[in-house]
Amino acid sequence: MGDLLDPVFYPRSVAVVGASEGVGRRGGDFVRRLQIYGYRGKIYPVNPRRPEIFGLKAYPSLKAVPGSIDYVIDCISIDRTLDLLTECAEKGVKVLHIFAGRASETGREELKELDKQILGRAKDYGIRLIGPNSFGVYCPKEGFCSTGYDLPNEEGSLSAAVQSGGNSTDLIRFGALRGLRFNKVVSYGNALDLDESDFLDYFAQDPETKIILCYIEGVKDGRRFFSTLRNASRSKPVIVAKGGRSKAGVKAAASHTAAVAGSWNLWNVAIRQAGAVPARNLDELIDFAVAFYFLPPIKGIRVGITGGGGGRGVLSADECEEMGLDVIPLPAEIREELKEKAPIIWNWVGNPADLTIMKDAGVDNGDVLQMMAKHPDFDLLIANVTEDWPSGENELPIQAKDEVNKYIEVHKADLKPVVIVCGDRSLGTEEMDNWRWRLFAELKTQARNARIPFYPTIGQAARAVKELINYYTLGNQAPSKDKLTA
Amino acid sequence: MGDLLDPVFYPRSVAVVGASEGVGRRGGDFVRRLQIYGYRGKIYPVNPRRPEIFGLKAYPSLKAVPGSIDYVIDCISIDRTLDLLTECAEKGVKVLHIFAGRASETGREELKELDKQILGRAKDYGIRLIGPNSFGVYCPKEGFCSTGYDLPNEEGSLSAAVQSGGNSTDLIRFGALRGLRFNKVVSYGNALDLDESDFLDYFAQDPETKIILCYIEGVKDGRRFFSTLRNASRSKPVIVAKGGRSKAGVKAAASHTAAVAGSWNLWNVAIRQAGAVPARNLDELIDFAVAFYFLPPIKGIRVGITGGGGGRGVLSADECEEMGLDVIPLPAEIREELKEKAPIIWNWVGNPADLTIMKDAGVDNGDVLQMMAKHPDFDLLIANVTEDWPSGENELPIQAKDEVNKYIEVHKADLKPVVIVCGDRSLGTEEMDNWRWRLFAELKTQARNARIPFYPTIGQAARAVKELINYYTLGNQAPSKDKLTA
Repeated sequence: MGDLLDPVFYPRSVAVVGASEGVGRRGGDFVRRLQIYGYRGKIYPVNPRRPEIFGLKAYPSLKAVPGSIDYVIDCISIDRTLDLLTECAEKGVKVLHIFAGRASETGREELKELDKQILGRAKDYGIRLIGPNSFGVYCPKEGFCSTGYDLPNEEGSLSAAVQSGGNSTDLIRFGALRGLRFNKVVSYGNALDLDESDFLDYFAQDPETKIILCYIEGVKDGRRFFSTLRNASRSKPVIVAKGGRSKAGVKAAASHTAAVAGSWNLWNVAIRQAGAVPARNLDELIDFAVAFYFLPPIKGIRVGITGGGGGRGVLSADECEEMGLDVIPLPAEIREELKEKAPIIWNWVGNPADLTIMKDAGVDNGDVLQMMAKHPDFDLLIANVTEDWPSGENELPIQAKDEVNKYIEVHKADLKPVVIVCGDRSLGTEEMDNWRWRLFAELKTQARNARIPFYPTIGQAARAVKELINYYTLGNQAPSKDKLTA
Repeated sequence: MGDLLDPVFYPRSVAVVGASEGVGRRGGDFVRRLQIYGYRGKIYPVNPRRPEIFGLKAYPSLKAVPGSIDYVIDCISIDRTLDLLTECAEKGVKVLHIFAGRASETGREELKELDKQILGRAKDYGIRLIGPNSFGVYCPKEGFCSTGYDLPNEEGSLSAAVQSGGNSTDLIRFGALRGLRFNKVVSYGNALDLDESDFLDYFAQDPETKIILCYIEGVKDGRRFFSTLRNASRSKPVIVAKGGRSKAGVKAAASHTAAVAGSWNLWNVAIRQAGAVPARNLDELIDFAVAFYFLPPIKGIRVGITGGGGGRGVLSADECEEMGLDVIPLPAEIREELKEKAPIIWNWVGNPADLTIMKDAGVDNGDVLQMMAKHPDFDLLIANVTEDWPSGENELPIQAKDEVNKYIEVHKADLKPVVIVCGDRSLGTEEMDNWRWRLFAELKTQARNARIPFYPTIGQAARAVKELINYYTLGNQAPSKDKLTA
């Protein structure tokens, strides 16, 4: 496949067939978002009834467009796709992105027949299809975003093939809040022509893609998919979320992207056997991506945990162990160091280290994290942010910032990988204007900007880190840290 | 036990021994928070070296206090507790709350011996002990909060016995963001005297407590605990989170609250056998509490799902089924109604119903939710908020508000229980000032104010609802909806 798919992600010109100025309508959104997003190629709105659309000259047909056209966004009804294909062929179009849904996923026989005709004609003309029922492509490097959605325009090194349109934009948006940045994302919908295997193969060979994410509802050719997945996983981490694994989910997938889905257990095993990482849903896909994006290859399971208070320490130990990490006892050398620095309470401190009530003791959570970072027995560190100091608006910011700053310092010294856990799963209500929640939002942003992965719960952190460790201890090649997070 | 514990939650006067004006110091925080919180009884700071603390007259000793004292907060060192007990006895004190930790949980033999002496003397004097190593009591009805923490002061019908201090205040704070309001919370720490069984028994008999939550690291008397739990569960829902279930967790629990913890599987089975609901961590405890607090007793598993887009629908179906809910096919009557109102796409709509791309179709997600609410085949409804409309700042608020308002209307018609799912688990960074995230924060707040439970993920919603259904279909008595959410 190779660079044959380059016009999908790097088109030099895009025509929008069915363009309009309708706000909240795809014909309008596609044009407007390309403009807003700063697409560096030419944009040609096509609409026989309008001379101009959002300040751009509009054309009555593809044929009337003066220059060449690489990529056509089709936002008219599926019924008119055959004629449009002929027009595309006459114009030398390379890629047709069919936004329209209500195709074969409706289950209607006549539309299944139409699918066959569309595919046949596209093959005859040598035009590649994205969709039907697709949000298209997101490639921030080129300022190219054919989704019609308002998305962040910083580029990164993640690429994703996502069968569902909504999941593709959720992945980009929710991922961005956690610090993920994407190189290329495609929502490939019903996969009439280009499918999961094509994109996986392309991303595997793409030097700008360091990590691959997939959300798949069904595959057309299982043998090809798993062979492609195996190859891709040899060169870079691939994380695969599978939707449509229950009876009702399979049914929903069929009417969503006409996919033939299958059972989760079979998928889970097959994905692992191919050397890839299975995720159960979009949240796990993001959690796992955060680990692979920010952390170096970790090859041991011995974890040191600090902060958060005694009860949180207990639950942290439980959840880490249950996830397969080893919460080792505090090494003798650290105990000796504590004995010297904190003689009153040294023999009370363990791993997890809870020092919230010890501010008169001579050491704090950050100090213990640092001792753990220097000690060879630990493979990774999880730092709980102590959200629950008793103090109020004048003191809490000082205490909490001090703690997080120390965590960031330990991370920057680069002796051990550090993950931060700071609870937020109950946020997202108007109370977030309260100084307390704003404080932790600010601290999490700082941690993220320092390239420390953060998770809202220890369970999510432990699960994601364990998948990373599994990946790098099962013989997969470890890309260098620099490459991974470039 | 009965109302013998009333002075724990409703003391008429409180003395703080070791009071100070130290900000961020317990001696200061205890006094100041009682004032700020609006405690309706008398506050007596005790400190021989100060005439006044935060504007209150300070006393050199308990004996010097003019009035009677019900509740003493001891924030001096554990070593001086024996003498303090004698002073308490002379003054007729009913409850001594020992904040100080670094007691037997340090593992030191001499402190274990001290524990015995403290307990023996308290029993001789008829004084009940909370702690050591305890944040004490939160009882907003009385404006009584001996935790030293800044906590919301609205009362509700949940009561909680929490062994860990930090977990008790996290439970109150994070729970409040989800709409939970508490009647009584006690952090009972090392449980030298009053323990989980005492409080469980008291809450079971307390008419103001409708639902009981527990976070337990270990129990002193297993037989008594499970017998008490069984009795309590007969009268009201009890949800129990157990910390200290792994090797490292058990060790951490021992040094946290001196608890003898045990394996999760045994606990899980035993809690269920007692008719209570086991939770794995604080997040689950809150998720489950939200379901029991806001939802009526639901006795069937047939769920209708709307909104969120096609990919989210597929994953919603997967996660609901995997959690044991039945995502039934859309009933024939609703299909007929859709055929009439939305002839173009009626046979494409299923359960989950994805109508995000159908705004020209004549029906929307809210309409389908309403049809499901009227139909007898559904036991409950889960409404995904469609966060991912393609539209921008001018249109999205209109679309999203319209959707959520329709969901709220369906809830208010009270035909079926409605749960809202709106993603927020990636929030809590500075990006929350973006209009998009503020919009959903506002909508979630509206849903919560309308007393609709909301969850950040469908998986959490399905798990919590399934626990509720299990509870009410395994023969437990169902309190009326009014009573539950009073």
